Amino acid sequence: MDGLMMDYPLTINAILNRARQVFPDKEVVSVLPSGAKHCYTYKDLYARVVRLSHVLRKLGAKPGDRIATFAWNHYRHLELYYAAPMSGFVLHTLNIRLFPEQLEFVVNHAEDAVVFVDASLVKAIEPLARKLKTVKHWIVMTEDGKLPETTLAPVSEYEALMKQASDVEDFPAVGENDAAGLCYTSGTTGNPKGVLYSHRSTYLHTLLAGQTDVLGLSERDVVMPVVPMFHANAWGQPYLLPNIGAKTVFAGSNVTPEALVKLIVSERVTYALGVPTIWNGLLQYLREHKTDLGELKHMVVGGSAVPRAMIEAFKKEFGILIIQGWGMTEMSPLGCTGRLMRRMEDWPEARQIDVLANAGIPCVGVEMKVVDPLGKELPWDGKSAGELLVRGPAIASAYFRNEEAKEQFTRDGWFRTGDVAFLDPDAYLHIADRTKDLIKSGGEWISSVEMENAIMACPGVVEAAVVSRPDPKWDERPVAYVVRKPGAATPTPADVVQHLTGKFAKWQLPTEEDIRFIEQIPRTSVGKFDKKVLRQQQRAS
Amino acid sequence: MDGLMMDYPLTINAILNRARQVFPDKEVVSVLPSGAKHCYTYKDLYARVVRLSHVLRKLGAKPGDRIATFAWNHYRHLELYYAAPMSGFVLHTLNIRLFPEQLEFVVNHAEDAVVFVDASLVKAIEPLARKLKTVKHWIVMTEDGKLPETTLAPVSEYEALMKQASDVEDFPAVGENDAAGLCYTSGTTGNPKGVLYSHRSTYLHTLLAGQTDVLGLSERDVVMPVVPMFHANAWGQPYLLPNIGAKTVFAGSNVTPEALVKLIVSERVTYALGVPTIWNGLLQYLREHKTDLGELKHMVVGGSAVPRAMIEAFKKEFGILIIQGWGMTEMSPLGCTGRLMRRMEDWPEARQIDVLANAGIPCVGVEMKVVDPLGKELPWDGKSAGELLVRGPAIASAYFRNEEAKEQFTRDGWFRTGDVAFLDPDAYLHIADRTKDLIKSGGEWISSVEMENAIMACPGVVEAAVVSRPDPKWDERPVAYVVRKPGAATPTPADVVQHLTGKFAKWQLPTEEDIRFIEQIPRTSVGKFDKKVLRQQQRAS
Repeated sequence: MDGLMMDYPLTINAILNRARQVFPDKEVVSVLPSGAKHCYTYKDLYARVVRLSHVLRKLGAKPGDRIATFAWNHYRHLELYYAAPMSGFVLHTLNIRLFPEQLEFVVNHAEDAVVFVDASLVKAIEPLARKLKTVKHWIVMTEDGKLPETTLAPVSEYEALMKQASDVEDFPAVGENDAAGLCYTSGTTGNPKGVLYSHRSTYLHTLLAGQTDVLGLSERDVVMPVVPMFHANAWGQPYLLPNIGAKTVFAGSNVTPEALVKLIVSERVTYALGVPTIWNGLLQYLREHKTDLGELKHMVVGGSAVPRAMIEAFKKEFGILIIQGWGMTEMSPLGCTGRLMRRMEDWPEARQIDVLANAGIPCVGVEMKVVDPLGKELPWDGKSAGELLVRGPAIASAYFRNEEAKEQFTRDGWFRTGDVAFLDPDAYLHIADRTKDLIKSGGEWISSVEMENAIMACPGVVEAAVVSRPDPKWDERPVAYVVRKPGAATPTPADVVQHLTGKFAKWQLPTEEDIRFIEQIPRTSVGKFDKKVLRQQQRAS
Repeated sequence: MDGLMMDYPLTINAILNRARQVFPDKEVVSVLPSGAKHCYTYKDLYARVVRLSHVLRKLGAKPGDRIATFAWNHYRHLELYYAAPMSGFVLHTLNIRLFPEQLEFVVNHAEDAVVFVDASLVKAIEPLARKLKTVKHWIVMTEDGKLPETTLAPVSEYEALMKQASDVEDFPAVGENDAAGLCYTSGTTGNPKGVLYSHRSTYLHTLLAGQTDVLGLSERDVVMPVVPMFHANAWGQPYLLPNIGAKTVFAGSNVTPEALVKLIVSERVTYALGVPTIWNGLLQYLREHKTDLGELKHMVVGGSAVPRAMIEAFKKEFGILIIQGWGMTEMSPLGCTGRLMRRMEDWPEARQIDVLANAGIPCVGVEMKVVDPLGKELPWDGKSAGELLVRGPAIASAYFRNEEAKEQFTRDGWFRTGDVAFLDPDAYLHIADRTKDLIKSGGEWISSVEMENAIMACPGVVEAAVVSRPDPKWDERPVAYVVRKPGAATPTPADVVQHLTGKFAKWQLPTEEDIRFIEQIPRTSVGKFDKKVLRQQQRAS
């Protein structure tokens, strides 16, 4: 017997419709390339999406075709987040930091029909354009309405098309299982793999992100997602914020500490999201300039492990709570967020920060298990590490047009994350490492992430990354790449080893020779430490 | 093109599984009839639901059969909330306050196969039992494990069955559209009408209830739903609280102010939910006994309009924020909750309380519109009143086995609430009245709810209800039934009219003869003012 409830489809349309009706006057603020601010409301956004839908349907794309973006965070990008799926297309957000050959692969693999490009990024994509066979139309998003000189063709300017478009609302019918979005993960090996989201998965991810204990965001917040819209759906913010009526602040292309501080203070931002690199830079800036962050009270930090020292510094020096997030493009992307539980409320601060330095507890709508190499489920005992598997209504069941990566999905419906992790009795996830980032020494494992965290807590250290080097006796040994404050001569290698002593078993400690100081740690296209490059450097040295 | 996300069914099973895995040690506290407390954890709940599932499947019910409950709020009732739908049955919560003929109608209409009854309620249902032809088995829930003397047959004791049941987990597969729950609305006219929830609608309602701006509940809360589990799913709390890991406190059958205060303080309740009557009684008690409510910070109050004076009193005298909720059994039931928006944060307190006295803004997942008698949509302008229509994934599309009430559902997929309402530009819902509770005087409307609210703010008034009386000249005129503090001789009718003057147009004011003092206001089975009875009294007088 079926229930007698409405067969109401879970679509992105419902989200924007809610923003229009319930929060028509809430604002979207975007910093433009010139530094000027653009500001309009969710009601304006809705009206523009109506027009943009007409624009998209006139470009010759067929239902289900991929509409790509190559852009920073701003209101036009947001318009595309809605207009593409609401018009029956699939929004494909291209990562602007991909290497050219990866970008070429991704556009051709997705068979993008149209690409929307920021004027400031036109030069970056031009050299590739002739290799992108499926692209029928280029649209440039400009600040001044003037199409720049370009070899892209055929090409149009965004606002020129918008002006000609009808303002009559006329969205085609969409079903909840229709494809809505496409993101490629920038894998560290092999070609990028695509994740094809549906309206339903996007809607459900928006509901799970809106839970009090997931992000805790409210209409009362002013939110700045520094996480790029070209990476993992900007962690779901472009859909969450209009749904709950929070004011949105987009920093655009200038994400220097100085620009971010100015924006946070002037727009009275209460809540920000981004990768650790951004906030680490901000932290140094705040200390040097003896300034603060106005009304900012919460930051969600994810994308790579958040150093404990950074959580402590923001809390103690600036009264800002860092909520660590863990997720994956394949998970829409939220998997865990880290908050204190009720029973921890009266713990000493140091112990609380230990908890906040974990990856957090599984979000509503995300099931987890850790398995041994034979697939047997391990207990949540705080020590049994194995591969982390996840399941839920906003998690991928396959990669887009990719048969080779099928083994990442189990037959009984779980996604293999490739992370080595354990869960503790309080349900906090501890990511030991990516499978490939573990260091195997003398038959035992050393966690590179743990060692990085410990080194980053050492006075004078700005950042650190740990990789393995081959060793004839021990198989592998840890090598630490350490960034000191500019111009500083301390800590010395001996200081670092001394700092680690007692925190790691003796056999795990790196030698002084294996502590290497560098100017900065190489990054991947999404701002994570690029250990592939470090390993290459290490082998070449 | 469909998305490539997991086909993960949205079921009640996923909720309990989450509670077991993520929050195994969080507690469910139940006050037993003797006053003793029972306490166990979500892990225990899960193990008991496994057993209860075996019990249910041995009672001869077929998949989809209705399993009824006739019970107060306690842990065994909670076990049934999960075991019935997770075993392929439909949980039908009988309202213990229904009149016998309504109860008979409801059980026979639903064709309940099994009824679970509290020992303390056995005598209440016995006289009806022989008329309930479909019931194959009665199960009595006792405190001491001893089956009371009863004419119910065949009859078993709950714990005796549980002891014999297997503890091996073995739930049948359920789909997200399978029926999961059944509640009847206690209509004020005609027979009660049934709403048949699905697993999907229940899961989605749980996600919407968990939004920061809907209830704002967290794992850090200790929650006491005083709203009965036999009424509108206890506003979704039995599913929400395990999903988010909040500790649950059930008051059982003793909901006197004294008992509630004791429980709130001893269990460190932070959040409570119930109808205005309960909290009004509590307020008088707190003032008389010069006591407070410990850690209680939030109360969700709904079921009928919340008097502004009550919101003000709890805020000013006890620092407790009342969040007004509006919903309907047909809506699972949450429709609106009332919180302040960002731009109201620095408003004067009196103006803030005015806002909190509205029904709130539409919850995530609930679409609303107000239409004129021809079905034309009216603007959200703070004055255009019409019938309120709602739509969403947790809203009924039909009544269970009821062809006559079809006109409450529009052809294009909306549910007609029967409420006269308007929405203001800030998206707050103002319920003017139930269509049938409006007073039509001289061709114009008087809102009984507004007048009740105004009278309840008059010093010395405990409660007030306003109904219409026929009038030869004006068609209808308002009559106010007013409860004063016990033994008090004021306010006088003149005082009440004086208090209303200026707040209502002159022609709307009741005469002094139409202010009538009574001992208490009659209630419906769910604790709302029973205006049907007042109208009868009024006509008889």
